[in-house]
Amino acid sequence: MTIRIDDLPIRDELRGKSPYGAPQLDVPVRLNTNENPYPLPEPLVERIAERVREAARALNRYPDRDAVELRTELARYLTRTTGHEVGTRQVWAANGSNEVLQQLLQTFGGPGRTAMGFEPSYSMHGLISRGTGTGWIPGPRRDDFGLDVEAAARAITEHRPDVVFITSPNNPTGTAVDADTVLALHDAAQAAKPSLVVVDEAYVEFSHRPSLLPLIEGRPHLVVSRTMSKAFGAAGLRLGYLAAHPAVVDAVQLVRLPYHLSAVTQATALAALEHTDTLLGYVAQLKAERDRLVDGLRAAGYEVTDSDANFVQFGRFEDAHAVWRAILDHGVLVRDNGVPGWLRVTAGTPEENDAFLDAVRALKKEQSS
Amino acid sequence: MTIRIDDLPIRDELRGKSPYGAPQLDVPVRLNTNENPYPLPEPLVERIAERVREAARALNRYPDRDAVELRTELARYLTRTTGHEVGTRQVWAANGSNEVLQQLLQTFGGPGRTAMGFEPSYSMHGLISRGTGTGWIPGPRRDDFGLDVEAAARAITEHRPDVVFITSPNNPTGTAVDADTVLALHDAAQAAKPSLVVVDEAYVEFSHRPSLLPLIEGRPHLVVSRTMSKAFGAAGLRLGYLAAHPAVVDAVQLVRLPYHLSAVTQATALAALEHTDTLLGYVAQLKAERDRLVDGLRAAGYEVTDSDANFVQFGRFEDAHAVWRAILDHGVLVRDNGVPGWLRVTAGTPEENDAFLDAVRALKKEQSS
Repeated sequence: MTIRIDDLPIRDELRGKSPYGAPQLDVPVRLNTNENPYPLPEPLVERIAERVREAARALNRYPDRDAVELRTELARYLTRTTGHEVGTRQVWAANGSNEVLQQLLQTFGGPGRTAMGFEPSYSMHGLISRGTGTGWIPGPRRDDFGLDVEAAARAITEHRPDVVFITSPNNPTGTAVDADTVLALHDAAQAAKPSLVVVDEAYVEFSHRPSLLPLIEGRPHLVVSRTMSKAFGAAGLRLGYLAAHPAVVDAVQLVRLPYHLSAVTQATALAALEHTDTLLGYVAQLKAERDRLVDGLRAAGYEVTDSDANFVQFGRFEDAHAVWRAILDHGVLVRDNGVPGWLRVTAGTPEENDAFLDAVRALKKEQSS
Repeated sequence: MTIRIDDLPIRDELRGKSPYGAPQLDVPVRLNTNENPYPLPEPLVERIAERVREAARALNRYPDRDAVELRTELARYLTRTTGHEVGTRQVWAANGSNEVLQQLLQTFGGPGRTAMGFEPSYSMHGLISRGTGTGWIPGPRRDDFGLDVEAAARAITEHRPDVVFITSPNNPTGTAVDADTVLALHDAAQAAKPSLVVVDEAYVEFSHRPSLLPLIEGRPHLVVSRTMSKAFGAAGLRLGYLAAHPAVVDAVQLVRLPYHLSAVTQATALAALEHTDTLLGYVAQLKAERDRLVDGLRAAGYEVTDSDANFVQFGRFEDAHAVWRAILDHGVLVRDNGVPGWLRVTAGTPEENDAFLDAVRALKKEQSS
């Protein structure tokens, strides 16, 4: 007898579900997961090997449970790039921003509590909420994918969530919000009940707007989450972090698994942080390429959502999935996030972006012929 | 105004709690966290640097989400060391066995469900249960820390837990169980309700008894969890894994965070698996040292629980914590796990173990003088 998942005594809400994850297809040009297309520079690769070699000599010992050196360097990076002084005790790190968010939800959400995000947005917010037993409440977004502050505040007032997610720049739409929007939603949330407001800035280094991080000052219920996956070109490293009041950092330590962050992860992240300037140079190139994608798509007759990220949302399509497949037939993999009428393309290298633009221009010609 | 954890809107059950973790003290001889005292051999350190260098060249890309190469090598290791054929699809890996257990509890436990373990045992079983919203039910153990099969089965029948933990060898007592015990408790659990039985074999490589892994055959509700922290001397790596029916592996993928296992972790673990023979040689040395600790403690007049692990539980003390401190005054850090009357010492290098035995002999003299 073949035994399948549903024959096991799993939780009822997991029955019939599929694991999260983009299709992993073997395609020449992969612009589907918002990866940074630039491999780490060779001197950084060597430095990683060097620091990991050093860490490996003590690998029989548990890692620094509090990752103090790494958190100190992340705080320095945030201070330097935002102009807002951030201390070690205000920073926490984990295996990807997903784990950071999971720890926040285990601490401030969980059974009997709820979280709200403004959809379409990063779908892991809802999935990690459900994975931690937190009820998920989808909040509204305008048709142009911007946040309607009044409608969003009304939803908060009505549903009184324990955790509110604001993604800026938003994934998959690319839309960023300003400080006034965050403050209005933060205040609406606090008026409803004491609650945590999480500003997910995974893509902020690519934005035209400044980071919202300075807003944590004097607001112990406001958290900014970040990742090294995108701007640092280190999706394979799985290093996410947050900045907040030190009490929030203390609080997540009540639920974090002890020694959650390996010595090799800490060593690799520290090496990457030594090469911040080079990596931010790639970010500047990618911003220019992102703008070229926006212009190219518009010139080809597509609708494009303004983007502050390293990806671009484009449409509109009667059948987005059919267009996704047609682009794939041209050897380019983009992402169908399930937003009706829209697809998302990651800014790749100039050559990859040319291949994508050629593909979408060819599609327009096929349609009109 | 100073803001502390309890001023934040954290979950009620976290209020007043402290983070899990042994005190990290700067002491000459640290025998408190069951680490392997032998640093990785230099050729393995070089191989790690080499494999991580290779992985770093693609670090801008997400890691293999399914960690197929690593799971294949872990399956080969299990097959080779247990004599029981294990396939890639039967193995799953995560950041430490703690994360493996967390994923199992998110899938098979969670809100409205319960887990049972036989205390004293690995305290993270209860903590991760609570962290995932799973009710925790402490089950009984005999005064000599062995499992009383009938009493344990009765507790299972009475409480009908959704997840049952059997730790073998048990931490902190060192006690291993035989296959008949696992089978009896597995059958009692299944008779009560369809439930998951997790055999935690973190220390099994140090045991006099064979692994219980072959019991997974034909039992899709039986899981064996393992770690590279102890036998592979890689506590800093944070690599835990499980072996079970492929449907269990499929099921935990419904809750695992996508790309949870970094490319550097996968590369380092693969390098260590290439050096299995050398590392198992250290295990043989540690088993001999563990036996020497047992003999030395008994000769010095202490009570000792038979140990199948890389640590030894010794007593009995009116005030175990006072003895813990007295040993610390001799420059040796052991562990007070909160088991009344008992302390735990990890088998270290011969020199470390000599320092420990000198300390406990000196204490006996001080007492009798």
